[in-house]
Amino acid sequence: MNQSIKEYIVSINSAIEQEDFGDKPQELYEPIRYIMSLGGKRMRPLLSLLSYQLYKDNIKEVIPASIAVEIFHNFTLMHDDIMDNAPLRRGQQTVHEKWNSPVAILSGDVMLVKAYQQLIANSPTEKLTEILEKFNRCAIEVCEGQQIDMNFEEQEQVQEADYIEMIRLKTAVLLGFSLEFGGILAMDNEADQALLYQMGVNAGIGFQLMDDLLDVYADQDKFGKQVGGDIIANKKTYLLIKANELAQGENSIKLHDWLKAQDFDNEEKVNAVKSIYDELHIKTLTEAKMNEYFEKAFTNLEDLDAPSEKKNIIKDFFNYLINREQ
Amino acid sequence: MNQSIKEYIVSINSAIEQEDFGDKPQELYEPIRYIMSLGGKRMRPLLSLLSYQLYKDNIKEVIPASIAVEIFHNFTLMHDDIMDNAPLRRGQQTVHEKWNSPVAILSGDVMLVKAYQQLIANSPTEKLTEILEKFNRCAIEVCEGQQIDMNFEEQEQVQEADYIEMIRLKTAVLLGFSLEFGGILAMDNEADQALLYQMGVNAGIGFQLMDDLLDVYADQDKFGKQVGGDIIANKKTYLLIKANELAQGENSIKLHDWLKAQDFDNEEKVNAVKSIYDELHIKTLTEAKMNEYFEKAFTNLEDLDAPSEKKNIIKDFFNYLINREQ
Repeated sequence: MNQSIKEYIVSINSAIEQEDFGDKPQELYEPIRYIMSLGGKRMRPLLSLLSYQLYKDNIKEVIPASIAVEIFHNFTLMHDDIMDNAPLRRGQQTVHEKWNSPVAILSGDVMLVKAYQQLIANSPTEKLTEILEKFNRCAIEVCEGQQIDMNFEEQEQVQEADYIEMIRLKTAVLLGFSLEFGGILAMDNEADQALLYQMGVNAGIGFQLMDDLLDVYADQDKFGKQVGGDIIANKKTYLLIKANELAQGENSIKLHDWLKAQDFDNEEKVNAVKSIYDELHIKTLTEAKMNEYFEKAFTNLEDLDAPSEKKNIIKDFFNYLINREQ
Repeated sequence: MNQSIKEYIVSINSAIEQEDFGDKPQELYEPIRYIMSLGGKRMRPLLSLLSYQLYKDNIKEVIPASIAVEIFHNFTLMHDDIMDNAPLRRGQQTVHEKWNSPVAILSGDVMLVKAYQQLIANSPTEKLTEILEKFNRCAIEVCEGQQIDMNFEEQEQVQEADYIEMIRLKTAVLLGFSLEFGGILAMDNEADQALLYQMGVNAGIGFQLMDDLLDVYADQDKFGKQVGGDIIANKKTYLLIKANELAQGENSIKLHDWLKAQDFDNEEKVNAVKSIYDELHIKTLTEAKMNEYFEKAFTNLEDLDAPSEKKNIIKDFFNYLINREQ
């Protein structure tokens, strides 16, 4: 990874560590410090810094503002984990498991307010309304995406276009806002701000498709989670949606039977579904769709009115992420 | 009730009815429309209008802004009801009962963002930062109050001062903000803005003490809920905290036994605890404390630099609320 990106991540982590989230009652503030300390890639604030550096050099000045998107992201994780009954987050107990659901609901609520506080305290007054309007829209869309995702779990069939729209809302628009936010803080070129947003959305859809792929095709030694977890849980990923769409005859019956199976050996199910995916060339199809979105993101990047050497930092970072786990 | 107040409430209700909260996915937006349509006194937006009319006449203009505090209030109700496992809200099913907890968590999250949207879209740009900073502080304090209230239920003893601080946070600061908000929208007199906030906080503490009293001493025919509900649930109200503090000898043992009792007849418990309250003059003590806060609120009102006939509208409204259910 590029040296300046490593330095950005160190600065982001240090700013998060020094953040005074609050004190009493401790049941409210300890979970916030806990989830914020679990790490992660710090992708969203990093994206704000990366778009800012396209236009300006004084990166340190926007680190406090960038933390807002990380707080917001962790608020969504804390609440999503309750809704999804998830026991673990980044290999550690989730907040509702370590404490309880009321604590996770309320700490999450406070985090959402803290995200606004962080945004408001660190945005220039003359751009505050614009920033908040865009942030509000993004925040609502993320919630819409989560609800649509939950709805999908109750549905027999999901269409490809609906799935792409769901991941756009649930995951991609926040990457879009994070990049756009850095751009708004740096300059006034509205065409570039819109391109930054589009780049984030396109890359975000690409990264989610990559996550869907990795769940099935990752190297178990390098992968943080159990390979095949989505298959075991019948999670409606791009791969399953595509397989449902394309499977015919015996494959369709086999896939359907595995989706309905109650008692099964995990490994057997993963291998069986995977071999259906292979016969249907699901990996290739997903890679094609993923690359289509990455291509769009790279085109957005090229179209920006910024120095090539600065754009290359973002290009290299995306390529690093794309190649890291494959 | 004063004719202009009735008109304000009609205008508030009509603005809420016309509000376009959103459409799809319907699981996210129907619960918002549902809880917002359950009614209630619309006390918080009404307070914003009442403080605004002290200084300006064009009340209609601030109705959209005032709706923000009602949306925020209903967000807290939706989430509190999950945490408190409450089956009913204003006599109707709570959102997590009618739908489910994930829906109530996520719809609540969207409502919090919608409260910000409503505030941002309807506040003058030059006052936006100030308004948002005060709103953020208030929102966080309301969450702190809810957490402290939940903590109290796990504690053997609660001190009077801690209880007053809890209800200040959980209930009173939002009434304070609602009044201050109307003041900020109307004028620039910071001393008056601070007095409006104080008036709301003092009145809010008074109203909560009144609620505690009514739960035990209300006329069942007029009271919306079951009289004695707090006693049955061992809810740590001002009355119980005061009784715990003052009970000695046999009264102390009896009270303690009733608090520990597992199987009991509801009516018998309510009557027994009530007779301990009576022996300890808890009603008189609570009324004295409540009136102390109402007096403070009325002094705050008197100190405002506004026309007496306008102040009298607020005075009459508070007196109407104070005398209505007693």
